[in-house]
Amino acid sequence: MAEVTLTICTTCRRGEVTDPEAPRPGARMLAALQDADLPEGVAVRGVECLSACTRGCSIVLSGGDARWSYIYGDLDPDEHVPDILTGAAAYAATTDGLVPWRERPVVFRKQSIARIPPAPVAAPSTPPSLSKD
Amino acid sequence: MAEVTLTICTTCRRGEVTDPEAPRPGARMLAALQDADLPEGVAVRGVECLSACTRGCSIVLSGGDARWSYIYGDLDPDEHVPDILTGAAAYAATTDGLVPWRERPVVFRKQSIARIPPAPVAAPSTPPSLSKD
Repeated sequence: MAEVTLTICTTCRRGEVTDPEAPRPGARMLAALQDADLPEGVAVRGVECLSACTRGCSIVLSGGDARWSYIYGDLDPDEHVPDILTGAAAYAATTDGLVPWRERPVVFRKQSIARIPPAPVAAPSTPPSLSKD
Repeated sequence: MAEVTLTICTTCRRGEVTDPEAPRPGARMLAALQDADLPEGVAVRGVECLSACTRGCSIVLSGGDARWSYIYGDLDPDEHVPDILTGAAAYAATTDGLVPWRERPVVFRKQSIARIPPAPVAAPSTPPSLSKD
């Protein structure tokens, strides 16, 4: 199993009034990524609802016990797939998930919803990182 | 070490123009929770910046390999500490992190920023849950 996972919300509507019979933008995003040439060590999965409905399409980039996880939103399945793949490759190349700012795709710099530190491994009061971005 | 972790962003300003010498609202939130009577199995830690700056104060509730993680925002250190503790206790009582809607504090129902599923344990294409909330 790949160490890094791109989790795609398949129920995201992107605020669009869509044909109820048509695939939702989130499902189209998942399909586009499943058809793409994924970076080494990166797998894709779909889930129903990341509870970021006002910011869809939304995705999570996570992997391993030592990496920060990132949630991105306001993504467009027709525009952003190449940037997501570039960002996922840079993320997979780190050990802690912290890609230098200038090496992140612009869409990751501007459309981050939140980030989550790795689970604590020492005393719970020890911050996992002093980085601020 | 406790299995469930409440991670508190200590740099959150809550949009307030604060005295630069005074503790930020996020740091006050952490202090209030550290002083509180925590539910069994729940630990508190502070981190610098969850990158949810427009939604501060922000926190993450996470724990173990099988639970969904939740990010909450727009929290007030002077108002919401009891609700956060109630919500953390309900979360710690689950195995998957999915607390029934009616059992969540109102602040958790209304102020969720996003949720992240647990890491995949089977094939990456297998959704970890079909629940939609």
